[in-house]
Amino acid sequence: MRDFSKSCEWLSINTATVKKQWSLDKIIDECAKRNIRSISPWRDQVSVVGIERIAKQLKSHSMTLSGYCRGGFFTAVDAKGLQEARDDNRRAIDEAKKLEAPCLVLVVGSLPGALAGAASYKEIGLAREQVFDGVAQALEYAKEVGMPLAIEPLHPMQAAERACINTLEQALDMCDALDPSKGGSLGVALDVYHTWWDPKLKEQIERAGRNRLLAYHVCDWLTPTKDLLNDRGMMGDGVIELKKIRGWVEDNGFAGFCEVEIFSELDWWKRPGEDVLDTCITRHKTHT
Amino acid sequence: MRDFSKSCEWLSINTATVKKQWSLDKIIDECAKRNIRSISPWRDQVSVVGIERIAKQLKSHSMTLSGYCRGGFFTAVDAKGLQEARDDNRRAIDEAKKLEAPCLVLVVGSLPGALAGAASYKEIGLAREQVFDGVAQALEYAKEVGMPLAIEPLHPMQAAERACINTLEQALDMCDALDPSKGGSLGVALDVYHTWWDPKLKEQIERAGRNRLLAYHVCDWLTPTKDLLNDRGMMGDGVIELKKIRGWVEDNGFAGFCEVEIFSELDWWKRPGEDVLDTCITRHKTHT
Repeated sequence: MRDFSKSCEWLSINTATVKKQWSLDKIIDECAKRNIRSISPWRDQVSVVGIERIAKQLKSHSMTLSGYCRGGFFTAVDAKGLQEARDDNRRAIDEAKKLEAPCLVLVVGSLPGALAGAASYKEIGLAREQVFDGVAQALEYAKEVGMPLAIEPLHPMQAAERACINTLEQALDMCDALDPSKGGSLGVALDVYHTWWDPKLKEQIERAGRNRLLAYHVCDWLTPTKDLLNDRGMMGDGVIELKKIRGWVEDNGFAGFCEVEIFSELDWWKRPGEDVLDTCITRHKTHT
Repeated sequence: MRDFSKSCEWLSINTATVKKQWSLDKIIDECAKRNIRSISPWRDQVSVVGIERIAKQLKSHSMTLSGYCRGGFFTAVDAKGLQEARDDNRRAIDEAKKLEAPCLVLVVGSLPGALAGAASYKEIGLAREQVFDGVAQALEYAKEVGMPLAIEPLHPMQAAERACINTLEQALDMCDALDPSKGGSLGVALDVYHTWWDPKLKEQIERAGRNRLLAYHVCDWLTPTKDLLNDRGMMGDGVIELKKIRGWVEDNGFAGFCEVEIFSELDWWKRPGEDVLDTCITRHKTHT
C-alpha cells in the first residue's frame, strides 16, 4: 500500500468540495498553490468559466484530472428525452476529451422526475434497462474518441432520484455485459461513501481488478447523517475504514489518485475554502 | 396473488405507526374497532402498559400478532456488553412467546455507540461477526421455546447505527449458515422500505421461499426523503412497486399479513390516529 503520510502526490480534489466558496479557476489556483496536482471538475463549474480557459489553466499548472463529472442521467419518459440524454452524454464525452480526463464519471440516473419530487414512472427495472441502453450507446462514441467511462454505483438511498445502479456488483455486471474484453473503455468509479456498507465490497473489488477500477473517491460517513445528499464527512470524522478499503483497491492494482469528494451543506461548504483544502491535505496524509 | 381490495383480513398494523398518538392498549382497541385483526407491537410500548394486560386484551379481541418488535442489537465493545445483549434477547424471546407472536423480529445492531453519535469501533466486519454469534446463541434458546427468529435486513443508510445486515442476500446467507435445514426457526422479515432498491430482490425472494419469509412489512419511499429514519411514506405516496413485490413474495409461498410500518415524524405521527388507521385500511386495499 502506498505511503501517503509525507506528500499529497496522490491527492485529487473533486471540485464540488469547495464549490460554494470558489469558482473553478480560483479552485485550480488554490490547489496549485498547495501542490495538489489533480482535480476532478464538474461540468457546470467548467461551463461558468469556459472550457478553453480551464484547459489552458490546467496546462499552465501541469495539473491533471482524476476524472470528469459527470455523464449519465440516461432515463426518460419518452424517446425525445432519451435522445436528449444521449446527446448530452456525447457532449460530456467531448468535454472530458478536451480536458484530457482519464475517464468520464457516470451517475446513471433513475426514475425520471423523481429528483424534482414526482416520478413519471416507478418501474426501477425499466430505469435499469434504459440505463443499460444509454451506457451502451455512450460507450460506442466513447470508444471512438478514446474516453473511458466510469460507472459510479450510488448509495441505495439515492436509488429513486440519482442512480439505479447501487452496488459495485451491479455496476460490474453491466461492465461485463457491455465490455467483456475488459479493454479499459468501461469500468467503475468507486466511492467509499456509496459502498462502504456493502458486505460484498472486498469480493467485488477483487472481481473489478485493475482494468475496471478507473477512479477512487473518498470522504466519510457521519453518525448521525442528517441529509441524504449533502452531509458527507471529512476523512477521519466518520466510520468508514478508509485505509482498509484503499488497501483492497491497491491490492487489486489501483495506483491512481484518491479523490476527495465532500458535499457538506452543514459544515465544509460553510468554512473558508483555504481551510477545507488544508484539511483535505492533512487528512489525506493521516486518514486516507 | 391475493385480492386485498375488499377487506383488511391480511392487514396488520405495526404499532410504531401510531405510537406518538396512542398508548398500546388504545391502539389495540382502535384496531379492533376497525376489524384489523393483527398488530406487531414494540417492546417499549408493551412494557408501558404491562405484558399481562396486553396479552389479555389481545385474547379478548381474538387479535393475533404478525411479529414482535424487536430483538437484536447484538454488538458491543466488551464481553459484558455482549452478554447483556444476549440476556436481553432471551427476555425478548420470552415476551414474544407470552404474546404468541409468530416470530421475533431482529434488528441486529452495528457499530456499538454509533447510534449515540460516537462509534466505539469502525470495523463493520467485526460487528457482523458479533451479530453472527449473537443470532446463533439466540437461536439456541429460541428453538428450545419454539419462537422463530426473523432477521430484518435494514437499508444500507442504517448500516452504521442500527443493522450491519443490509441486503436480503446477506440475511439469507446467515440463515443458511445457522439453519441449513430451513426448518422454520430462522428466517427474514422483509420490509420493502429497506429492500425495494435491491437489484437482486426478486432473485433473493425466490431463494428465501416460504420457509424463510416470516414477515412482510410495507410503507413507501418518498421523493425527496428528508430524514434517514423517520420520513417513511404511506403506501401509494412514494415510488415502491408494492404490488409487484407482494406478487413476488406470494409467488414464493408467503401467505401472511402485510404489516404497515410507518415512522413519520413530519407527517403521519402528527395526524389523528384515527385518520392514520383509516388511511392504512384504504391504502391496503388500493395500493398494497
